Amino acid sequence: MTDHPLKPETKAKLEGISVATIATALYKRGLRNQAIQDVRPLSQKGRNMVGPAFTLRYMPAREDRNTLAEFRNPEHPQRVAIETCPEGHVLVMDSRKSAYAASAGDILITRLMMRGAAGIVTDGGFRDAMNIAKLDLPAYHHRPSSPTNLTTNEAIAINEPIGCGDAPVFPGDIVVGDDDSVIIIPAHLADEIADEAVEMTAYEDFAIEQVRNGASIIGLYPATREESLDKFAEWRKANNR
Amino acid sequence: MTDHPLKPETKAKLEGISVATIATALYKRGLRNQAIQDVRPLSQKGRNMVGPAFTLRYMPAREDRNTLAEFRNPEHPQRVAIETCPEGHVLVMDSRKSAYAASAGDILITRLMMRGAAGIVTDGGFRDAMNIAKLDLPAYHHRPSSPTNLTTNEAIAINEPIGCGDAPVFPGDIVVGDDDSVIIIPAHLADEIADEAVEMTAYEDFAIEQVRNGASIIGLYPATREESLDKFAEWRKANNR
Amino acid sequence: MTDHPLKPETKAKLEGISVATIATALYKRGLRNQAIQDVRPLSQKGRNMVGPAFTLRYMPAREDRNTLAEFRNPEHPQRVAIETCPEGHVLVMDSRKSAYAASAGDILITRLMMRGAAGIVTDGGFRDAMNIAKLDLPAYHHRPSSPTNLTTNEAIAINEPIGCGDAPVFPGDIVVGDDDSVIIIPAHLADEIADEAVEMTAYEDFAIEQVRNGASIIGLYPATREESLDKFAEWRKANNR
Amino acid sequence: MTDHPLKPETKAKLEGISVATIATALYKRGLRNQAIQDVRPLSQKGRNMVGPAFTLRYMPAREDRNTLAEFRNPEHPQRVAIETCPEGHVLVMDSRKSAYAASAGDILITRLMMRGAAGIVTDGGFRDAMNIAKLDLPAYHHRPSSPTNLTTNEAIAINEPIGCGDAPVFPGDIVVGDDDSVIIIPAHLADEIADEAVEMTAYEDFAIEQVRNGASIIGLYPATREESLDKFAEWRKANNR
Amino acid sequence: MTDHPLKPETKAKLEGISVATIATALYKRGLRNQAIQDVRPLSQKGRNMVGPAFTLRYMPAREDRNTLAEFRNPEHPQRVAIETCPEGHVLVMDSRKSAYAASAGDILITRLMMRGAAGIVTDGGFRDAMNIAKLDLPAYHHRPSSPTNLTTNEAIAINEPIGCGDAPVFPGDIVVGDDDSVIIIPAHLADEIADEAVEMTAYEDFAIEQVRNGASIIGLYPATREESLDKFAEWRKANNR
Amino acid sequence: MTDHPLKPETKAKLEGISVATIATALYKRGLRNQAIQDVRPLSQKGRNMVGPAFTLRYMPAREDRNTLAEFRNPEHPQRVAIETCPEGHVLVMDSRKSAYAASAGDILITRLMMRGAAGIVTDGGFRDAMNIAKLDLPAYHHRPSSPTNLTTNEAIAINEPIGCGDAPVFPGDIVVGDDDSVIIIPAHLADEIADEAVEMTAYEDFAIEQVRNGASIIGLYPATREESLDKFAEWRKANNR
Repeated sequence: MTDHPLKPETKAKLEGISVATIATALYKRGLRNQAIQDVRPLSQKGRNMVGPAFTLRYMPAREDRNTLAEFRNPEHPQRVAIETCPEGHVLVMDSRKSAYAASAGDILITRLMMRGAAGIVTDGGFRDAMNIAKLDLPAYHHRPSSPTNLTTNEAIAINEPIGCGDAPVFPGDIVVGDDDSVIIIPAHLADEIADEAVEMTAYEDFAIEQVRNGASIIGLYPATREESLDKFAEWRKANNR
Repeated sequence: MTDHPLKPETKAKLEGISVATIATALYKRGLRNQAIQDVRPLSQKGRNMVGPAFTLRYMPAREDRNTLAEFRNPEHPQRVAIETCPEGHVLVMDSRKSAYAASAGDILITRLMMRGAAGIVTDGGFRDAMNIAKLDLPAYHHRPSSPTNLTTNEAIAINEPIGCGDAPVFPGDIVVGDDDSVIIIPAHLADEIADEAVEMTAYEDFAIEQVRNGASIIGLYPATREESLDKFAEWRKANNR
Repeated sequence: MTDHPLKPETKAKLEGISVATIATALYKRGLRNQAIQDVRPLSQKGRNMVGPAFTLRYMPAREDRNTLAEFRNPEHPQRVAIETCPEGHVLVMDSRKSAYAASAGDILITRLMMRGAAGIVTDGGFRDAMNIAKLDLPAYHHRPSSPTNLTTNEAIAINEPIGCGDAPVFPGDIVVGDDDSVIIIPAHLADEIADEAVEMTAYEDFAIEQVRNGASIIGLYPATREESLDKFAEWRKANNR
Repeated sequence: MTDHPLKPETKAKLEGISVATIATALYKRGLRNQAIQDVRPLSQKGRNMVGPAFTLRYMPAREDRNTLAEFRNPEHPQRVAIETCPEGHVLVMDSRKSAYAASAGDILITRLMMRGAAGIVTDGGFRDAMNIAKLDLPAYHHRPSSPTNLTTNEAIAINEPIGCGDAPVFPGDIVVGDDDSVIIIPAHLADEIADEAVEMTAYEDFAIEQVRNGASIIGLYPATREESLDKFAEWRKANNR
Repeated sequence: MTDHPLKPETKAKLEGISVATIATALYKRGLRNQAIQDVRPLSQKGRNMVGPAFTLRYMPAREDRNTLAEFRNPEHPQRVAIETCPEGHVLVMDSRKSAYAASAGDILITRLMMRGAAGIVTDGGFRDAMNIAKLDLPAYHHRPSSPTNLTTNEAIAINEPIGCGDAPVFPGDIVVGDDDSVIIIPAHLADEIADEAVEMTAYEDFAIEQVRNGASIIGLYPATREESLDKFAEWRKANNR
Repeated sequence: MTDHPLKPETKAKLEGISVATIATALYKRGLRNQAIQDVRPLSQKGRNMVGPAFTLRYMPAREDRNTLAEFRNPEHPQRVAIETCPEGHVLVMDSRKSAYAASAGDILITRLMMRGAAGIVTDGGFRDAMNIAKLDLPAYHHRPSSPTNLTTNEAIAINEPIGCGDAPVFPGDIVVGDDDSVIIIPAHLADEIADEAVEMTAYEDFAIEQVRNGASIIGLYPATREESLDKFAEWRKANNR
């Protein structure tokens, strides 16, 4: 689905950098809308969620097509998405920014975890959110929502390009989530963004240390004073960064 | 795409009934969310828009994929949708309920009219709305929106099931628009809804005449008094309905 | 229901003044939230709607209580409201600021007109809006909405204090609507507001004439220059105001 | 007020099942809008809130009727609601989905707790939320809101049918809240919903155990494979469920 | 205030082109957010509003600073803005996208017209909108709003950079409004945008004529076929464009 | 900037009272809109934020003025605000109630803390929110937001009167934040509000103790029974309040 599979070393780099830093690196390339708006982690994991996107698209539910009997259909796209999302991938759901009804619940998301997914994101809401929060799988939504997804959402298509929280998501794009939010890196940019963001993170870590030691941000952040770059070079050496 | 093409006699019936009456007929069948929410006609046409749905789906635009150069691509889905929407069909656009940028403009919609489409609907906005209002083609949107669609919308797929104004729209569903709003009739129900709505409309026309003559609505609307049905029978005879 | 019935002379005064002027007169008395927010006339009538409020309260619909059969109940509050709204009164509906489904349609509103009501207001939407616009009855809503009210609204109580468009409405309060919007005057203030607003309107008419003749607003509006008051006195005499 | 008082055994059952499961049981009966939208617990209690609804309706505040002196009136409906809410009941407030000003504060809610209420819910916000969170009383709101309720809310009526977070609430309906959200069970359905939901919960607990052991959800959830039901029967025996 | 006063010939050009075309010309230069979102003309004027921006900024009103007596102050920024807006300029108001209370009314706007302003725009609402609609001055707002501006808006600063409908507006920027909406051209780009947009408009007029004669948009719009450019050259000659 | 600098004793008093109590004291003086709507603390500090307001105003970002290079400008108002906010002050940002992009991030806010500020508030969102939460500086926002502020916000002016969360904020006004929310006290009222609120807090502490001991709120809160005031007098003596 993508010519740009996620390299293990890129994944490792992306695990150590913040969504904010990635957002800035994308901004430099003219990409301003890659952050998924208004989703949050169900619980803080102390580590980043990183993986290629596998998508599920919901459309508004028509009542005659969305009775509970539909779930008995083994081809139901929501169920199929859970059972086919590749290992290491993040299941990203376009729930039309509505949390009126759920995007998924704890049984399905537990199954997703067992199958080795890297995480799950919806711009709607999860039911059984308190249970999902305890799983060893990063999950992001807008807010808890208890009604079954059938109430307003029909799962209609798997692995199409979608919108999620007003961000464009193409299958195979790299999804990164931290304790604040989630961002989408176009697949072909993942390596260079990871490299650049690692550099930026080193400088940011240096800068924050300087600031904690009393430095002004003028000339330091960004590094418009030569001296800042010199100090940074020393700091890198001293800190093996 | 559908096993239920729109019959000319069904179309003729649907041209004479209001979206409100269709909404009630669908409601009787448990379908409560078929009205496209918060769209309005660019101008009143004094006649209904009726035709099967042909759909276009927009997703959030990623800047590098949505430069003006994209329009030079003859395969651009927005352009292709305009050039392939079948005669008599209504082009329904899922613009994610955002009118920040346009869904289409007057040149494309003029082309759609020339190609014989029955109408166009978006849950976003059209640019050049004042020109579109003057075309001999029913058009419905949320509000005028001047920025090019590339600004926030990428046309991504043609004739998929979509949402439009929170209503589910499947290709081939029958779209009916009047001076108030737009509704989606599932294709397989079009004939029976049309028949029933014609009957309902006859009764409503009778009822409003009675009300104008001083009748109370109690017992008349709905017809819980025997007498109302008797009078209606006479009225039908007298009025050839 | 109120100790302050609307006097004919107060009604006559209120027919000639704008909602904006009334809003300012209420503002002077510390009442800042009496304008019904975000409703508009279905058509311009060239005259004010004026009458005491008769209210209907909607609550969210529960499906088992809101089948079409409910309308067969002669005690259905929506029907009863239409049939009992006193002559000269304005029926004000609390539709919870939702136009997802209709607050009423043309048959009921025609009946309301026939019964001599002074107008109708909802903070939701009317179905058959284009027909209602043609009636000789002022009607205000947020936007057209075709689904039957049963879809999301249950009529639950008649002539209770309600909210409408975030304004407080008590039965018997005086409702005034012009081509812009609608405002609620507490019943006990109607006479004094009418008197004061007539005076304000005279000055505003004078002021706008002065402005059209080239006057600056400084010193004129408000009348902080003695000269403005002198000129106004002359103008009143000359214009019989 | 209701012919369906909450039976102790029904209450006990409802304490052990999730709002999500109840939502699905209601969905089977055609009730799709019983979840109170967009409220959350002020703190997690590790147990369900369960009790019949006792309601308070707010309307928009008119300034002259909502001075601080109003609170001196022993008949003020907000105060009366706190002092008359029956033991074991949940006080549900219709705050018109606005958290601009508070629905109640910690002194009143402490009193409600002392009087033996089962909980409190508003679709607006509570002031002193951080103190309320520490009380031994489940409380749900949209967000903290510090201004006194008089600012925008006038308490107008006790124990009427109301809307709360777009859900219909009738006095005596059974309110259930868990760590995710709150749902309203029509009083006459409480027993059968409780029974059915207990069964569903048993199966869900079984299913999640299976999933944790590596089972696919296809055929298991829902139980479309005979084998799933057999295993479940064994599991029930083994687990005394 | 700007080094780029509006040249008469640029103004003349901008009077003949649509906001949509200008939006596309700005889009080519990377400016995607210059359209003022969700404002509309109070009445269609059949001509464009064009002029440099003169701005007024509103902040939330504090009650003790916003009594009616404030208007007696000749230095009140709203009044001063009306009396100092230079001839030919457009008064653009940042009303924080709130139409709860008015941004201005008919007396002030009549005065603005008399003083020779080119138009007025607010992202809130005007009171006396029906009178303003009849003035010979283009006016744009979100919706009519009757309460005096003091209710929620304090006029705080004149001719600062502001936001209006989410668009950035700097004093001296060129404001263009047509029957659809309003856009802001950065002052230093006005000449080149005008030139380019005139060219684009010529091609659009040609293209729409071709479409009306049966041409496909593929190859024509945009002009990817050589033949389209040849035909256009002929058309220009024939039509003196 | 203000004739009413914050006195140490007033600051001390304000550190011990809740935003809710301050809101009521302001309400008594006719100030109803001083609470900043819909912001929350990034973490609970167990102590109040108190300090005079130092403001930063954002406007919508124009792309050509908001490249990353802008941050290299030592005069960039966001940077300057951080470096000039006086010790003990609260930096209050008008981010137009949009959290689409960040208002600030952890490096800048760490610097602000190092410079001795009393806190920071935005009606948008902070990036690196999880790090900011750990700082020893109270911070309030709407929600985490990772994109750089340049994406949609241009810092345009320092220490102007602004709106923040629909509250009016003048430089020098006293900002108080607790674990629920934030409120703005006009500078000239700070002393009297602090005094009054200390008294109110004493009574509230007494009242809640009474309620915990089984007292009804009627007659107690507010103190309409003589007996309540007598008991309170005793309580004050006993508790040194």
